[in-house]
Amino acid sequence: MGRWEPNARERLATAAMELYEQRGFEQTTVAEIARRAGLTERTFFRHYADKREVLCGRSDSLEELMVSAVAAAPAAAPPWEALGAALEASAAMFEGQRDFARWRQSVIAANAQLQERELIKFASLAAALDTALRERGIPELTAQVSAETGVAALKVAFARWLAAPEERPLVEVVRETLAALRAVTTPPSTD
Amino acid sequence: MGRWEPNARERLATAAMELYEQRGFEQTTVAEIARRAGLTERTFFRHYADKREVLCGRSDSLEELMVSAVAAAPAAAPPWEALGAALEASAAMFEGQRDFARWRQSVIAANAQLQERELIKFASLAAALDTALRERGIPELTAQVSAETGVAALKVAFARWLAAPEERPLVEVVRETLAALRAVTTPPSTD
Repeated sequence: MGRWEPNARERLATAAMELYEQRGFEQTTVAEIARRAGLTERTFFRHYADKREVLCGRSDSLEELMVSAVAAAPAAAPPWEALGAALEASAAMFEGQRDFARWRQSVIAANAQLQERELIKFASLAAALDTALRERGIPELTAQVSAETGVAALKVAFARWLAAPEERPLVEVVRETLAALRAVTTPPSTD
Repeated sequence: MGRWEPNARERLATAAMELYEQRGFEQTTVAEIARRAGLTERTFFRHYADKREVLCGRSDSLEELMVSAVAAAPAAAPPWEALGAALEASAAMFEGQRDFARWRQSVIAANAQLQERELIKFASLAAALDTALRERGIPELTAQVSAETGVAALKVAFARWLAAPEERPLVEVVRETLAALRAVTTPPSTD
């Protein structure tokens, strides 16, 4: 076993992103990433399964975090409230990391294969939230629709947070997006 | 130019689906599809750009159809109503073709690459609906949220239509899904 390297995970991620941006994702090797971070390949593989995981690693923990938030919502909370808690928890995870998230986004946008992986992560997130809602006793149709809609809102909020010229708290953008969604689906009063 | 072949497009699609199912998508060649359909490769390429398009061909026309429905909605219609019209138009396109759609779905489910293409089609559909809504003067956030939510509802409705033991009209499943979505996002009355 190698010695413990302070911040190895973050150093590897930064080195990887710099190389992906400069040379493209396909052209970058794990050896190059490790070298730029001043670490060994062995250390790289202690932190990431492959060079794609440097970009996607956080998505697994995002899924876990959101599923836990749904499960932890009060028993009486309607599905939309449980989902809202999950969306706010996800926002907290990215808060203060917009620069890294924008950077990551630009790397993904430049590579069709990475874009596809990103879409698969969202599909898998929707399936996990659907299951978590059903485990709360939510009927099938409601759970499916809530999970897909929640992920749709997260996509919109995240994209807006990244695209805005000034950084705002992601949680604010999430709330604004959910409010807009509710306004869209609420029938206009007919008086 | 070859002579006109009656139902060539449908015969090629059926032959392709049979082969994809029996041998897998990767292992099937265009020559084999044409042979099984009793047609030439030349005829195949008059109808489809490649063997993937046999599965994905209709998605382009789906996008066109839905975008046109949004554009054709009355000027005073709120975004949710314009989107509802688009979803109902899409349902009409698939009505009566559930067997083919289920078959297609099982071929796609067996191939990771085809699943990714399918997700990309949905992402592209959301972007097209977003643009169509903005062209109606809908503000950015509302348009984005409506488009993503509409596609989420379509995914859920389509999956439910395919999965149900008995065939029901897709338009009914779409309406039921939109009603469930509205119920989920509507705040409970606080009296």
